[in-house]
Amino acid sequence: MSSLYKHLRVHQIFGANTDVGKTILTTALSRASASKKFPVFYLKPVSTGAKEHADDRHVARFGGKASKLIHAECLFQYDEPVSPHLAARLKDPENANIPSDDIFIKSVATRIREYARRTGKAAHVYIETAGGVHSPTLSGTTQLDCYRPLFLPTVLIGDSKLGGISSTISAYESLLLRGYIVDAVILFRDEYYRNSEYLTEYFRERGIYVATVDPPPARISDPLQDAEATEKYYEALVSPEIENGVSSVVDYLDVRHGIRLKELESMPQRTLNSVWWPFVQHGTIKGPEDVTVIDSAYGDFFSVARPQTNTNTSSSILSPEFDGSASWWTQTFGHANPSLTMAAARASGRYGHVMFPQATHLPALKLAERMVHNGPGKGWASRAFISDNGSTGMEVALKMALRAYTIRHGSKFTEQDKKNLGILGLKGSYHGDTIGAMDACEEGVYTCEWHNAKGYWFEPPSIGFQDGKPRISVPSSLSSTAKPHTVPAKSLSWIYDVEERLHTPLARGYALYVQRALEKIEQQGQKIAALVIEPLVMGAGGMIFVDPLFQRVLVDVVRGRRSGSSKEWSGMPVIYDEVFVGLNRLGVESAGPILGVYPDISVNAKVLTGGLVPLSVTLATQSIFNAFLNDAKADALLHGHSYTAHPIGCEVANETLAQIDKLVKTDEWKSAKSKWSEYQGEESKVWSLWDPQFVAEVSKLPKVKEAMALGSVFAINFEDSSAGYTSFFAQNLLSPLKKPFEDSGLSNAPGGAPYGIHYRTLGNIGYFMTSLNTKASVIRSLEDKIWRTIAN
Amino acid sequence: MSSLYKHLRVHQIFGANTDVGKTILTTALSRASASKKFPVFYLKPVSTGAKEHADDRHVARFGGKASKLIHAECLFQYDEPVSPHLAARLKDPENANIPSDDIFIKSVATRIREYARRTGKAAHVYIETAGGVHSPTLSGTTQLDCYRPLFLPTVLIGDSKLGGISSTISAYESLLLRGYIVDAVILFRDEYYRNSEYLTEYFRERGIYVATVDPPPARISDPLQDAEATEKYYEALVSPEIENGVSSVVDYLDVRHGIRLKELESMPQRTLNSVWWPFVQHGTIKGPEDVTVIDSAYGDFFSVARPQTNTNTSSSILSPEFDGSASWWTQTFGHANPSLTMAAARASGRYGHVMFPQATHLPALKLAERMVHNGPGKGWASRAFISDNGSTGMEVALKMALRAYTIRHGSKFTEQDKKNLGILGLKGSYHGDTIGAMDACEEGVYTCEWHNAKGYWFEPPSIGFQDGKPRISVPSSLSSTAKPHTVPAKSLSWIYDVEERLHTPLARGYALYVQRALEKIEQQGQKIAALVIEPLVMGAGGMIFVDPLFQRVLVDVVRGRRSGSSKEWSGMPVIYDEVFVGLNRLGVESAGPILGVYPDISVNAKVLTGGLVPLSVTLATQSIFNAFLNDAKADALLHGHSYTAHPIGCEVANETLAQIDKLVKTDEWKSAKSKWSEYQGEESKVWSLWDPQFVAEVSKLPKVKEAMALGSVFAINFEDSSAGYTSFFAQNLLSPLKKPFEDSGLSNAPGGAPYGIHYRTLGNIGYFMTSLNTKASVIRSLEDKIWRTIAN
Repeated sequence: MSSLYKHLRVHQIFGANTDVGKTILTTALSRASASKKFPVFYLKPVSTGAKEHADDRHVARFGGKASKLIHAECLFQYDEPVSPHLAARLKDPENANIPSDDIFIKSVATRIREYARRTGKAAHVYIETAGGVHSPTLSGTTQLDCYRPLFLPTVLIGDSKLGGISSTISAYESLLLRGYIVDAVILFRDEYYRNSEYLTEYFRERGIYVATVDPPPARISDPLQDAEATEKYYEALVSPEIENGVSSVVDYLDVRHGIRLKELESMPQRTLNSVWWPFVQHGTIKGPEDVTVIDSAYGDFFSVARPQTNTNTSSSILSPEFDGSASWWTQTFGHANPSLTMAAARASGRYGHVMFPQATHLPALKLAERMVHNGPGKGWASRAFISDNGSTGMEVALKMALRAYTIRHGSKFTEQDKKNLGILGLKGSYHGDTIGAMDACEEGVYTCEWHNAKGYWFEPPSIGFQDGKPRISVPSSLSSTAKPHTVPAKSLSWIYDVEERLHTPLARGYALYVQRALEKIEQQGQKIAALVIEPLVMGAGGMIFVDPLFQRVLVDVVRGRRSGSSKEWSGMPVIYDEVFVGLNRLGVESAGPILGVYPDISVNAKVLTGGLVPLSVTLATQSIFNAFLNDAKADALLHGHSYTAHPIGCEVANETLAQIDKLVKTDEWKSAKSKWSEYQGEESKVWSLWDPQFVAEVSKLPKVKEAMALGSVFAINFEDSSAGYTSFFAQNLLSPLKKPFEDSGLSNAPGGAPYGIHYRTLGNIGYFMTSLNTKASVIRSLEDKIWRTIAN
Repeated sequence: MSSLYKHLRVHQIFGANTDVGKTILTTALSRASASKKFPVFYLKPVSTGAKEHADDRHVARFGGKASKLIHAECLFQYDEPVSPHLAARLKDPENANIPSDDIFIKSVATRIREYARRTGKAAHVYIETAGGVHSPTLSGTTQLDCYRPLFLPTVLIGDSKLGGISSTISAYESLLLRGYIVDAVILFRDEYYRNSEYLTEYFRERGIYVATVDPPPARISDPLQDAEATEKYYEALVSPEIENGVSSVVDYLDVRHGIRLKELESMPQRTLNSVWWPFVQHGTIKGPEDVTVIDSAYGDFFSVARPQTNTNTSSSILSPEFDGSASWWTQTFGHANPSLTMAAARASGRYGHVMFPQATHLPALKLAERMVHNGPGKGWASRAFISDNGSTGMEVALKMALRAYTIRHGSKFTEQDKKNLGILGLKGSYHGDTIGAMDACEEGVYTCEWHNAKGYWFEPPSIGFQDGKPRISVPSSLSSTAKPHTVPAKSLSWIYDVEERLHTPLARGYALYVQRALEKIEQQGQKIAALVIEPLVMGAGGMIFVDPLFQRVLVDVVRGRRSGSSKEWSGMPVIYDEVFVGLNRLGVESAGPILGVYPDISVNAKVLTGGLVPLSVTLATQSIFNAFLNDAKADALLHGHSYTAHPIGCEVANETLAQIDKLVKTDEWKSAKSKWSEYQGEESKVWSLWDPQFVAEVSKLPKVKEAMALGSVFAINFEDSSAGYTSFFAQNLLSPLKKPFEDSGLSNAPGGAPYGIHYRTLGNIGYFMTSLNTKASVIRSLEDKIWRTIAN
């Protein structure tokens, strides 16, 4: 992702199969480039076996006058003519020196950077992969997955033999599944099988250039004669006289390279000319330099195009940028994850989209079963309603709650009463951008002209590290001293031990406060139909880590006494908005087990689809479902979107949930958890992928009021007089993070180039969010960069 | 899609490449099945060349006692040992007898149906494909695309040679992109390359069984000895003693078959146990028989599992069902369209999802440019705002309009005034299910407790064929006689010639009516902030084809005089909700050119993504954009969803729009258009894929009040005393359509099995909607079935 240079055109060469002429044609490309006076770097990262040695007659022979321009090298050489992963193990049975994918890719990327430095003028790089597109590399990962982090434009060498149409198209599709840019296909002419006729047409329809070239002459036993014949062959092959031959391919690749550069350059201004961004004040955009151009993404990193203002053309136009908001809280396993792509592809291939009312299909059914019976709904939910995103999922939840409440108490209400049924919630709540979901929140910056805040919102106590210690901040409205104050806690784990804390004076204080408020609301004649909370953390409201005890007490009070085993809602339906917090974003699948109470309705989205496509699931108890159940069509929940339960979304969600099941058992998670237990000296109820010591230390910094982390989320509340959403304090303070850190040595980004951090702020709150599988080493380097930025 | 039988287990055999042992291993599978006493049908639809003949030593030799149980046949035989498409052309240069894909698939499906009839007891079918997965079939379509309509479970023969890991995985991925169920992989043992070690692990992780078996002995020159060695080889190969061999594969395929049947059987009840459907009154669901189980989909057809209540096990469990609502108005090119799958796959592979505020990526940028400058926004729009579905797109549109109006007139309004700013619209409008979008409509069955109808809605005149003639129905509110009446029109084309009709008395009547209503609204003190219309057709309101003249006059009146070239909105912002009607659903890209006036804001969705994933684009003029433009963050349009502009959706939309560009130039479209011109005896302004004569004839039927068609939509308004959304009249009348029509001969469904029609009704309105590329022959057969159903 960091190997795009103005002057250095780099292409990797993949083969549709082994033995299709990859080495011959890469040699030909190199010679054709050299004959056009371009310096050429021919890199063959891995070479195996006798077959490859046989090809030496080609590799070794960069004949003619051009040869001086060609620099060829190989990084890893193995004797055995078998798949690289096998060849490596045969040579090194202990697996002592076989490079990991990360190291392998860094060594290739380092070579490319070196080529870029070494040549001041336009030059070409050809990187020849080993075997077919899916042949295993040294580590065992297949070629196209291993090379993917580099995201190099590709030339595919097609297969001219019988069956070669199939293997060439399949190889192309495998490349496409990884998003590769395929610029050209080259294959040998074969007058009998005529694959090139078919493939030329096939790829032309897909905008890909196909060149068909003469196959090499048969080997001659006399080495001198053979060398002569080979030289003659190459000379003919690269001749610019040949229409549509290797020489034309070289020109075409230059054209493609130029188009790509031009496109990246033009994208910012074109975007400013046609796009209306969400949540962006276009009036504050100074110009193209304020637009982040994302060329591709891989793992936790965007590959970002930076305008090259200086004349130093030896630096890459693309550089890695850590996706520090997990792309608005969606990323679960990193970008362009092959498992999720495959899930999307197989659902698209089997169903496309099919309509859902009164119908069923496996992806939706499995998702519903998983969510209801073996996921966040386990033990309380009976139904899953699928919609398109967190906001629509919350609108569905509100419609469920309003109906259930009205059915039970409706006889007391006028039509106008129903329109004004209120929501009980917390100040700082946010349930999505649609107008109905907004009406469940207080008026604020996010609300529009039609906004009509329906309900009552408590100021909640919150949790965070202050001066290195975990504390509970109690707002004045709740405080007996009428002043906000903080309560020290013996540990973070203790704070989240809700059952234990139920018997503390603070719990009784909370209960009293809630009861009094409810009485007052009732006195004022306001009708409340549902309790809606974001459990544990209110995200968009400013990453507020709410005291879980307060939320527990709130649920208990509004429900009043109900028989322990009943699943009938009591008091009012309780909705958990787990769109952001759910499905292990905070290290736990759902907040229910921490709070010790379960909702009547809950909503999941974001992580649900692993960060690929929008989808939401609203879960409900049988008691809620029954409110809509009779024989009148008009009494049904008449809500649904055209793409409800679209198979791609459901299948991707199923894959995500299956991968999370594996992830929670990994050593990375276990070790992060035990770090938090060790730090606190007790088995911790909560944990984070972020280091506890780091979080505590940050909270001691003078500019920092509070710091806190749970799961993949780390938030910093900065000391700032002009607090609120429109504050630019955090934005400005953190801005150096955007710029790549020129550390000595290789970075943790794929390919090892220096990387910056793409982050979002919420007023004076800075936050950083990783995927659920971000490597500890990457998080450590983030912590280091963040520390260096804010400690200064 | 119609070849799943209880007693007949059918598998197709694909090869990872040519020459990987497909014929040998299919023979082995057949022999193993036979040795377990199953009758076996071995079908090789296409056989080519000398290589295949060499394999005859295997094909011909169903040795031992089992041989009597094996019935082998080949449908198309060619001599030349080249790709089937080439072999067919060499034999038949005129291309006179080369079957189309449709005919080819029907001949295979017919054979399977015959096998099912011929055997009363459990039997196995193996269908051997030719070459690799992507080798071209006789027509030139590649194997896996050609066979896809049958959707048969698959055994993949892996490649054991050098490079075979790559070709096997790539072939698997190509199968996966078409949604195929891959039950097992079989490949030969090769102790040197050891592909099976790698592949066994690889496929195990993906839930696929891998069997590694001995390769065949080298050919012996003496035919007798060779036959003996071959026989011995097969006997050993299929021995049940061999662990994890061919015999185990046969058992495993039986298990998979059983699981699949059981799953299909259990799906209805499981769905009723965990799913909450949109727009369905669960109280009216009698039981599992009311659940449509969609096993897969292809083109315009679902493959639906029907409960087998009778004992006739020789009929397929799966049968085709025409998707008569185009899956809630989304389908554009039919289900599981490979181009859309590839678009989704390449975007997922390159980006996954990446966040959008202040960022850009090619799929989103290209979509914005296309929609603004070269699509529905051409000539008037300046910005594209991307959101998740039609409903959210409309909420964005409303927020834009409310802000723009308030900025200009806000000083006159109190906060309460702003909350109640009204919408001007038409009775029967529907803009999506979220609460805000609902508030732009009148109260009705779709609205919830919080619904607060904000605005004024006109009763619109509508268009349709009555007793065979096009007429304009004018409601009483608009009529000078105070009674609803109909106005005959000389042709449908004339009705849509809005410019021409602007000078008619009816136009003046419309204008007067609108002006008076607006005056009355103003007198009552209601503030109207926007005009919102679904141009041409109001969908969810009951497929009401609104008189375009009325909508034109409405826009003209609310805008008042504005200078011709100004793009400043005047009067109030005008919103076109083109979510349903746009992008050629009605045969035109946008309604603007027909109405002769353009909106200030418009919304597209549904067809936008070709019927694959949710996405919406809200277009706006620069004048609207400017209302949000300053340097205050809080004044920006603070609306956005996590997956805003998700690359998969944008890339699929770009592919869809590119495909539509091609589609509009096809002969199918040209011929449908000219049919409507011929029918009317003039160049028609509007047209439909449905036959004009058919539409007119339907309107003459006694049960029918009105019939109408535009583009891919055909609607019937039935005579019914209990009109309205909750009417079951149309639903009951049309119910025979659900059942497959047992016509003589092969149907137009893929594979030719009898098909039923899956349709939706809106109260007493029955409607049918095709994809934009549904074949004329299919539509003719639909017309025939619909006619036979309602004319009775």
